[in-house]
Amino acid sequence: MKIGIVGATGSFGKGLAYRWAKKHTIYIGSRSPERGEQKARDYCLELQRYGIDARIIGTSNHDAITSGDIIVLSVKFEHLMPLIADSGNQFCNKIVISPIVSLKKEQCFQYVPPSEGSVALLIQAMLPNATIVSALHTIPANRLQRPDMILEGDVPICGDNREAKETVISLIKEIEWLNPIDAGPLEVSKMVEPIVPLILNIKQYSLKRDTSIKFI
Amino acid sequence: MKIGIVGATGSFGKGLAYRWAKKHTIYIGSRSPERGEQKARDYCLELQRYGIDARIIGTSNHDAITSGDIIVLSVKFEHLMPLIADSGNQFCNKIVISPIVSLKKEQCFQYVPPSEGSVALLIQAMLPNATIVSALHTIPANRLQRPDMILEGDVPICGDNREAKETVISLIKEIEWLNPIDAGPLEVSKMVEPIVPLILNIKQYSLKRDTSIKFI
Repeated sequence: MKIGIVGATGSFGKGLAYRWAKKHTIYIGSRSPERGEQKARDYCLELQRYGIDARIIGTSNHDAITSGDIIVLSVKFEHLMPLIADSGNQFCNKIVISPIVSLKKEQCFQYVPPSEGSVALLIQAMLPNATIVSALHTIPANRLQRPDMILEGDVPICGDNREAKETVISLIKEIEWLNPIDAGPLEVSKMVEPIVPLILNIKQYSLKRDTSIKFI
Repeated sequence: MKIGIVGATGSFGKGLAYRWAKKHTIYIGSRSPERGEQKARDYCLELQRYGIDARIIGTSNHDAITSGDIIVLSVKFEHLMPLIADSGNQFCNKIVISPIVSLKKEQCFQYVPPSEGSVALLIQAMLPNATIVSALHTIPANRLQRPDMILEGDVPICGDNREAKETVISLIKEIEWLNPIDAGPLEVSKMVEPIVPLILNIKQYSLKRDTSIKFI
Protein backbone atom coordinates (compact mmCIF):
# COMPACT_ATOMS: atom_id res chain seq x y z
CA MET A 1 0.00 0.00 0.00
CA LYS A 2 0.97 3.62 -0.36
CA ILE A 3 0.89 5.34 3.01
CA GLY A 4 1.23 9.10 3.28
CA ILE A 5 2.28 10.30 6.71
CA VAL A 6 1.64 13.98 7.33
CA GLY A 7 4.05 15.43 9.88
CA ALA A 8 6.25 12.38 9.51
CA THR A 9 9.40 14.13 10.70
CA GLY A 10 8.20 13.87 14.33
CA SER A 11 8.86 10.76 16.38
CA PHE A 12 5.35 9.34 16.03
CA GLY A 13 5.37 9.61 12.24
CA LYS A 14 8.92 8.29 12.13
CA GLY A 15 7.82 5.32 14.24
CA LEU A 16 4.97 4.46 11.88
CA ALA A 17 7.28 4.79 8.86
CA TYR A 18 9.72 2.40 10.55
CA ARG A 19 7.04 -0.15 11.36
CA TRP A 20 5.34 -0.10 7.95
CA ALA A 21 8.27 0.45 5.56
CA LYS A 22 9.03 -3.25 5.27
CA LYS A 23 5.85 -3.94 3.32
CA HIS A 24 4.59 -0.59 2.05
CA THR A 25 5.73 2.55 0.27
CA ILE A 26 5.84 5.40 2.78
CA TYR A 27 5.56 9.08 1.85
CA ILE A 28 7.17 11.22 4.54
CA GLY A 29 5.33 14.53 4.54
CA SER A 30 6.74 17.68 6.07
CA ARG A 31 5.84 21.36 5.93
CA SER A 32 9.23 21.75 4.23
CA PRO A 33 9.72 19.25 1.37
CA GLU A 34 13.51 19.53 1.78
CA ARG A 35 13.19 18.45 5.40
CA GLY A 36 10.89 15.61 4.28
CA GLU A 37 13.53 14.44 1.78
CA GLN A 38 16.32 14.69 4.34
CA LYS A 39 14.34 12.72 6.91
CA ALA A 40 13.43 10.05 4.32
CA ARG A 41 17.16 9.54 3.62
CA ASP A 42 17.93 9.42 7.36
CA TYR A 43 15.14 6.89 8.01
CA CYS A 44 16.26 4.64 5.14
CA LEU A 45 19.83 4.66 6.42
CA GLU A 46 18.78 3.91 9.98
CA LEU A 47 16.48 1.08 8.86
CA GLN A 48 19.31 -0.43 6.82
CA ARG A 49 21.17 -0.82 10.10
CA TYR A 50 18.23 -2.95 11.30
CA GLY A 51 18.47 -4.93 8.05
CA ILE A 52 15.31 -3.39 6.62
CA ASP A 53 15.28 -2.33 2.97
CA ALA A 54 12.69 0.42 3.12
CA ARG A 55 10.78 2.35 0.48
CA ILE A 56 10.52 5.78 2.08
CA ILE A 57 10.05 8.90 -0.04
CA GLY A 58 10.37 12.39 1.40
CA THR A 59 8.09 15.14 0.20
CA SER A 60 5.73 17.94 1.29
CA ASN A 61 2.67 17.25 3.42
CA HIS A 62 0.55 18.20 0.40
CA ASP A 63 2.25 15.64 -1.86
CA ALA A 64 2.27 12.96 0.84
CA ILE A 65 -1.52 13.28 0.93
CA THR A 66 -1.78 13.18 -2.87
CA SER A 67 0.50 10.14 -3.14
CA GLY A 68 -0.93 7.96 -0.38
CA ASP A 69 -4.00 5.73 -0.46
CA ILE A 70 -4.00 5.87 3.30
CA ILE A 71 -3.06 9.06 5.12
CA VAL A 72 -1.97 9.27 8.74
CA LEU A 73 -2.36 12.67 10.36
CA SER A 74 0.67 12.70 12.61
CA VAL A 75 0.24 16.36 13.56
CA LYS A 76 -0.68 18.28 16.66
CA PHE A 77 -4.25 19.56 16.90
CA GLU A 78 -3.13 23.17 16.39
CA HIS A 79 -1.66 22.27 12.99
CA LEU A 80 -4.78 20.49 11.77
CA MET A 81 -6.79 23.47 10.56
CA PRO A 82 -3.95 25.05 8.52
CA LEU A 83 -3.31 21.62 6.97
CA ILE A 84 -6.94 21.19 5.92
CA ALA A 85 -7.05 24.78 4.64
CA ASP A 86 -3.96 24.11 2.47
CA SER A 87 -4.60 20.56 1.32
CA GLY A 88 -8.25 19.72 2.05
CA ASN A 89 -9.05 18.77 -1.56
CA GLN A 90 -6.25 16.20 -1.69
CA PHE A 91 -8.01 14.01 0.88
CA CYS A 92 -10.84 13.09 -1.49
CA ASN A 93 -11.42 9.28 -1.51
CA LYS A 94 -8.58 8.63 0.92
CA ILE A 95 -8.66 6.66 4.13
CA VAL A 96 -7.50 9.08 6.81
CA ILE A 97 -6.20 7.81 10.15
CA SER A 98 -6.55 10.31 13.00
CA PRO A 99 -4.55 9.72 16.19
CA ILE A 100 -5.01 13.42 17.08
CA VAL A 101 -6.24 14.59 20.47
CA SER A 102 -7.00 18.12 21.62
CA LEU A 103 -5.74 18.74 25.13
CA LYS A 104 -4.23 21.39 27.35
CA LYS A 105 -2.15 21.40 30.48
CA GLU A 106 -3.41 23.25 33.54
CA GLN A 107 -3.06 21.81 37.06
CA CYS A 108 -3.61 18.50 35.29
CA PHE A 109 -3.97 17.55 31.62
CA GLN A 110 -7.42 18.45 30.35
CA TYR A 111 -9.33 17.02 27.40
CA VAL A 112 -10.62 19.88 25.23
CA PRO A 113 -12.76 18.39 22.48
CA PRO A 114 -13.98 20.51 19.56
CA SER A 115 -17.73 21.15 19.39
CA GLU A 116 -18.17 18.10 17.10
CA GLY A 117 -17.33 15.96 20.14
CA SER A 118 -13.92 14.65 19.04
CA VAL A 119 -11.11 15.57 16.69
CA ALA A 120 -11.97 12.60 14.47
CA LEU A 121 -15.58 13.82 14.12
CA LEU A 122 -14.34 17.33 13.35
CA ILE A 123 -12.07 15.99 10.59
CA GLN A 124 -14.92 13.91 9.12
CA ALA A 125 -17.11 17.04 9.08
CA MET A 126 -14.33 19.06 7.37
CA LEU A 127 -13.47 16.29 4.87
CA PRO A 128 -16.81 14.72 3.89
CA ASN A 129 -15.24 13.01 0.83
CA ALA A 130 -12.62 11.19 2.88
CA THR A 131 -13.15 8.22 5.19
CA ILE A 132 -11.88 8.90 8.70
CA VAL A 133 -10.75 6.13 10.99
CA SER A 134 -9.69 7.02 14.53
CA ALA A 135 -6.77 4.94 15.83
CA LEU A 136 -3.36 4.81 17.50
CA HIS A 137 -3.94 7.51 20.12
CA THR A 138 -2.39 5.64 23.00
CA ILE A 139 0.82 4.32 21.44
CA PRO A 140 3.90 6.01 22.91
CA ALA A 141 5.99 7.62 20.13
CA ASN A 142 9.19 6.96 22.09
CA ARG A 143 8.77 3.24 21.73
CA LEU A 144 7.17 3.32 18.29
CA GLN A 145 10.26 4.91 16.72
CA ARG A 146 12.59 2.13 17.91
CA PRO A 147 12.17 -0.89 15.61
CA ASP A 148 13.96 -3.03 18.20
CA MET A 149 11.41 -2.15 20.87
CA ILE A 150 8.34 -4.22 21.55
CA LEU A 151 5.09 -2.30 21.63
CA GLU A 152 2.27 -3.67 23.65
CA GLY A 153 -1.29 -2.52 23.87
CA ASP A 154 -4.78 -2.60 22.47
CA VAL A 155 -5.65 -0.05 19.82
CA PRO A 156 -9.34 0.93 19.77
CA ILE A 157 -10.40 1.58 16.17
CA CYS A 158 -13.45 3.76 15.44
CA GLY A 159 -14.98 4.42 12.04
CA ASP A 160 -18.20 4.38 10.06
CA ASN A 161 -16.88 2.52 6.99
CA ARG A 162 -16.32 -1.17 7.59
CA GLU A 163 -13.88 -1.69 4.71
CA ALA A 164 -11.70 1.27 5.72
CA LYS A 165 -11.73 0.06 9.31
CA GLU A 166 -10.62 -3.42 8.22
CA THR A 167 -7.78 -1.94 6.17
CA VAL A 168 -6.58 0.02 9.19
CA ILE A 169 -6.98 -2.99 11.49
CA SER A 170 -4.83 -5.13 9.18
CA LEU A 171 -2.17 -2.38 8.96
CA ILE A 172 -1.99 -2.14 12.74
CA LYS A 173 -1.80 -5.92 13.09
CA GLU A 174 1.44 -5.70 11.09
CA ILE A 175 2.99 -3.85 14.03
CA GLU A 176 4.17 -6.65 16.28
CA TRP A 177 2.32 -6.97 19.61
CA LEU A 178 -0.23 -4.23 18.87
CA ASN A 179 -3.77 -5.49 19.02
CA PRO A 180 -6.38 -3.46 17.09
CA ILE A 181 -9.92 -3.67 18.52
CA ASP A 182 -13.05 -2.55 16.69
CA ALA A 183 -14.62 -0.08 19.13
CA GLY A 184 -17.57 0.82 16.87
CA PRO A 185 -18.55 3.90 14.87
CA LEU A 186 -16.54 7.11 14.60
CA GLU A 187 -18.65 8.65 17.39
CA VAL A 188 -16.91 6.36 19.86
CA SER A 189 -13.73 8.38 19.27
CA LYS A 190 -15.30 10.78 21.82
CA MET A 191 -14.57 8.11 24.44
CA VAL A 192 -11.13 7.12 23.11
CA GLU A 193 -9.47 10.53 22.71
CA PRO A 194 -9.81 11.43 26.45
CA ILE A 195 -7.68 8.38 27.31
CA VAL A 196 -4.61 10.34 26.12
CA PRO A 197 -4.83 13.13 28.74
CA LEU A 198 -5.78 10.44 31.29
CA ILE A 199 -2.58 8.55 30.51
CA LEU A 200 -0.58 11.78 30.79
CA ASN A 201 -2.16 12.46 34.19
CA ILE A 202 -1.38 8.94 35.37
CA LYS A 203 2.20 9.44 34.20
CA GLN A 204 2.40 12.72 36.10
CA TYR A 205 0.66 11.67 39.30
CA SER A 206 1.85 8.12 39.78
CA LEU A 207 3.40 5.80 37.23
CA LYS A 208 6.18 8.17 36.01
CA ARG A 209 6.47 6.34 32.71
CA ASP A 210 4.80 6.11 29.29
CA THR A 211 1.91 3.68 29.19
CA SER A 212 -0.63 2.37 26.76
CA ILE A 213 -3.86 0.55 27.53
CA LYS A 214 -5.15 -2.99 27.41
CA PHE A 215 -8.70 -4.24 27.79
CA ILE A 216 -8.47 -7.36 29.93
CA MET B 1 -13.78 0.79 58.91
CA LYS B 2 -17.51 1.35 58.59
CA ILE B 3 -18.50 1.30 54.94
CA GLY B 4 -21.99 2.34 53.87
CA ILE B 5 -22.99 1.08 50.45
CA VAL B 6 -25.93 2.92 48.93
CA GLY B 7 -27.86 0.71 46.50
CA ALA B 8 -26.10 -2.34 47.87
CA THR B 9 -28.79 -4.78 46.80
CA GLY B 10 -27.52 -4.63 43.19
CA SER B 11 -24.71 -6.88 42.02
CA PHE B 12 -22.01 -4.16 42.16
CA GLY B 13 -22.84 -3.21 45.76
CA LYS B 14 -23.13 -6.89 46.67
CA GLY B 15 -19.70 -7.50 45.17
CA LEU B 16 -18.10 -4.72 47.20
CA ALA B 17 -19.79 -5.98 50.37
CA TYR B 18 -18.41 -9.46 49.66
CA ARG B 19 -14.89 -8.20 49.06
CA TRP B 20 -14.74 -5.88 52.07
CA ALA B 21 -16.80 -7.76 54.68
CA LYS B 22 -13.83 -9.77 55.94
CA LYS B 23 -12.19 -6.71 57.50
CA HIS B 24 -14.87 -4.03 57.77
CA THR B 25 -18.42 -3.46 58.93
CA ILE B 26 -20.65 -3.06 55.89
CA TYR B 27 -23.96 -1.22 55.90
CA ILE B 28 -26.16 -2.47 53.07
CA GLY B 29 -28.37 0.44 52.05
CA SER B 30 -31.56 0.02 50.06
CA ARG B 31 -34.50 2.25 49.25
CA SER B 32 -36.50 -0.27 51.30
CA PRO B 33 -34.89 -1.00 54.70
CA GLU B 34 -36.67 -4.39 54.81
CA ARG B 35 -35.01 -5.33 51.52
CA GLY B 36 -31.68 -4.09 52.88
CA GLU B 37 -32.10 -6.31 55.96
CA GLN B 38 -33.11 -9.32 53.88
CA LYS B 39 -30.12 -8.88 51.54
CA ALA B 40 -27.75 -8.49 54.49
CA ARG B 41 -28.93 -11.86 55.84
CA ASP B 42 -28.59 -13.44 52.37
CA TYR B 43 -25.09 -12.06 51.90
CA CYS B 44 -23.93 -13.24 55.36
CA LEU B 45 -25.23 -16.74 54.65
CA GLU B 46 -23.60 -16.90 51.23
CA LEU B 47 -20.29 -15.64 52.59
CA GLN B 48 -20.41 -18.30 55.35
CA ARG B 49 -20.33 -20.87 52.56
CA TYR B 50 -17.04 -19.32 51.45
CA GLY B 51 -15.82 -19.52 55.06
CA ILE B 52 -16.12 -15.77 55.60
CA ASP B 53 -17.59 -14.50 58.85
CA ALA B 54 -18.98 -11.17 57.70
CA ARG B 55 -20.28 -8.13 59.51
CA ILE B 56 -23.03 -6.95 57.17
CA ILE B 57 -25.93 -4.86 58.44
CA GLY B 58 -29.00 -4.18 56.31
CA THR B 59 -30.71 -0.80 56.49
CA SER B 60 -32.09 2.11 54.45
CA ASN B 61 -29.87 4.12 52.11
CA HIS B 62 -30.28 7.07 54.48
CA ASP B 63 -29.03 5.08 57.49
CA ALA B 64 -26.23 3.43 55.51
CA ILE B 65 -24.93 6.94 54.78
CA THR B 66 -25.31 8.01 58.41
CA SER B 67 -23.56 4.86 59.70
CA GLY B 68 -20.60 4.69 57.32
CA ASP B 69 -17.34 6.62 57.46
CA ILE B 70 -16.91 5.83 53.80
CA ILE B 71 -19.90 5.77 51.48
CA VAL B 72 -20.00 4.05 48.11
CA LEU B 73 -22.66 5.30 45.72
CA SER B 74 -23.61 2.09 43.97
CA VAL B 75 -26.58 3.64 42.19
CA LYS B 76 -27.45 4.50 38.63
CA PHE B 77 -27.07 8.10 37.57
CA GLU B 78 -30.85 8.60 37.42
CA HIS B 79 -31.16 7.71 41.12
CA LEU B 80 -28.43 10.11 42.23
CA MET B 81 -30.46 13.33 42.42
CA PRO B 82 -33.37 11.84 44.43
CA LEU B 83 -30.79 10.32 46.81
CA ILE B 84 -29.05 13.66 47.36
CA ALA B 85 -32.42 15.40 47.77
CA ASP B 86 -33.42 12.87 50.49
CA SER B 87 -30.12 12.37 52.29
CA GLY B 88 -27.75 15.15 51.24
CA ASN B 89 -27.11 16.34 54.82
CA GLN B 90 -25.99 12.87 55.93
CA PHE B 91 -22.91 13.04 53.69
CA CYS B 92 -21.26 15.78 55.78
CA ASN B 93 -17.59 14.87 56.57
CA LYS B 94 -17.85 11.51 54.79
CA ILE B 95 -15.56 10.12 52.14
CA VAL B 96 -17.82 9.37 49.18
CA ILE B 97 -16.72 6.97 46.45
CA SER B 98 -18.39 7.57 43.09
CA PRO B 99 -18.22 4.83 40.44
CA ILE B 100 -21.22 6.44 38.67
CA VAL B 101 -21.26 7.21 34.96
CA SER B 102 -23.94 8.96 32.95
CA LEU B 103 -24.48 7.25 29.60
CA LYS B 104 -27.17 6.40 27.10
CA LYS B 105 -27.56 3.81 24.38
CA GLU B 106 -28.26 4.94 20.84
CA GLN B 107 -26.58 3.27 17.84
CA CYS B 108 -23.64 2.94 20.21
CA PHE B 109 -23.19 3.74 23.89
CA GLN B 110 -22.76 7.47 24.41
CA TYR B 111 -21.12 9.32 27.28
CA VAL B 112 -23.48 12.05 28.53
CA PRO B 113 -21.66 14.03 31.20
CA PRO B 114 -23.49 16.60 33.35
CA SER B 115 -22.54 20.24 32.80
CA GLU B 116 -19.96 20.02 35.63
CA GLY B 117 -17.92 17.75 33.34
CA SER B 118 -18.34 14.44 35.18
CA VAL B 119 -20.68 12.82 37.66
CA ALA B 120 -17.98 12.97 40.33
CA LEU B 121 -17.63 16.75 39.87
CA LEU B 122 -21.42 17.13 39.98
CA ILE B 123 -21.55 15.22 43.29
CA GLN B 124 -18.73 17.34 44.74
CA ALA B 125 -20.65 20.49 43.75
CA MET B 126 -23.86 19.16 45.35
CA LEU B 127 -22.09 17.92 48.51
CA PRO B 128 -19.44 20.53 49.33
CA ASN B 129 -19.01 19.17 52.89
CA ALA B 130 -18.17 15.66 51.70
CA THR B 131 -14.93 14.49 50.10
CA ILE B 132 -15.56 12.82 46.76
CA VAL B 133 -13.19 10.22 45.35
CA SER B 134 -13.92 8.81 41.90
CA ALA B 135 -13.07 5.10 41.54
CA LEU B 136 -14.13 1.60 40.49
CA HIS B 137 -15.92 2.54 37.25
CA THR B 138 -14.45 -0.21 35.14
CA ILE B 139 -14.83 -3.23 37.41
CA PRO B 140 -17.42 -5.69 36.09
CA ALA B 141 -20.16 -6.31 38.71
CA ASN B 142 -20.59 -9.89 37.45
CA ARG B 143 -17.12 -10.84 38.57
CA LEU B 144 -17.04 -8.59 41.63
CA GLN B 145 -19.99 -10.38 43.24
CA ARG B 146 -18.28 -13.80 43.10
CA PRO B 147 -15.73 -14.05 45.93
CA ASP B 148 -14.16 -17.06 44.18
CA MET B 149 -13.51 -15.05 41.03
CA ILE B 150 -10.27 -13.24 40.41
CA LEU B 151 -10.63 -9.61 39.38
CA GLU B 152 -7.91 -8.05 37.32
CA GLY B 153 -7.44 -4.46 36.34
CA ASP B 154 -6.13 -1.06 37.17
CA VAL B 155 -8.46 1.30 39.01
CA PRO B 156 -7.81 4.99 38.29
CA ILE B 157 -8.51 7.01 41.45
CA CYS B 158 -9.29 10.74 41.21
CA GLY B 159 -9.76 13.13 44.10
CA ASP B 160 -8.68 16.46 45.54
CA ASN B 161 -8.02 15.28 49.11
CA ARG B 162 -4.85 13.25 49.47
CA GLU B 163 -5.83 11.52 52.71
CA ALA B 164 -9.23 10.44 51.38
CA LYS B 165 -7.60 9.20 48.20
CA GLU B 166 -5.10 7.14 50.20
CA THR B 167 -7.91 5.61 52.26
CA VAL B 168 -9.73 4.58 49.08
CA ILE B 169 -6.51 3.29 47.51
CA SER B 170 -5.83 1.07 50.53
CA LEU B 171 -9.43 -0.23 50.50
CA ILE B 172 -9.16 -1.16 46.84
CA LYS B 173 -5.79 -2.84 47.40
CA GLU B 174 -7.63 -5.21 49.75
CA ILE B 175 -9.49 -6.59 46.72
CA GLU B 176 -7.13 -9.20 45.36
CA TRP B 177 -5.60 -8.41 41.95
CA LEU B 178 -7.10 -4.93 41.68
CA ASN B 179 -4.47 -2.26 41.30
CA PRO B 180 -5.50 1.29 42.30
CA ILE B 181 -3.63 4.06 40.47
CA ASP B 182 -3.60 7.71 41.50
CA ALA B 183 -4.81 9.50 38.37
CA GLY B 184 -4.74 12.99 39.88
CA PRO B 185 -7.38 15.51 40.96
CA LEU B 186 -11.14 14.97 40.79
CA GLU B 187 -11.23 16.80 37.44
CA VAL B 188 -9.51 13.81 35.84
CA SER B 189 -12.75 11.86 36.43
CA LYS B 190 -13.88 13.60 33.18
CA MET B 191 -11.39 11.33 31.40
CA VAL B 192 -12.13 8.17 33.40
CA GLU B 193 -15.94 8.06 33.26
CA PRO B 194 -16.05 7.84 29.40
CA ILE B 195 -14.07 4.59 29.58
CA VAL B 196 -17.27 2.86 30.74
CA PRO B 197 -19.30 3.51 27.55
CA LEU B 198 -16.10 2.76 25.56
CA ILE B 199 -15.86 -0.66 27.22
CA LEU B 200 -19.55 -1.28 26.52
CA ASN B 201 -18.99 -0.39 22.85
CA ILE B 202 -15.97 -2.67 22.64
CA LYS B 203 -18.08 -5.43 24.17
CA GLN B 204 -20.84 -4.81 21.63
CA TYR B 205 -18.68 -4.38 18.52
CA SER B 206 -15.93 -6.90 19.07
CA LEU B 207 -14.87 -8.58 22.26
CA LYS B 208 -18.34 -9.89 23.32
CA ARG B 209 -17.30 -10.10 26.96
CA ASP B 210 -16.92 -7.90 30.05
CA THR B 211 -13.55 -6.22 30.27
CA SER B 212 -11.67 -3.90 32.53
CA ILE B 213 -8.58 -1.86 31.74
CA LYS B 214 -4.89 -1.99 32.45
CA PHE B 215 -2.22 0.64 31.83
CA ILE B 216 0.81 -1.22 30.53
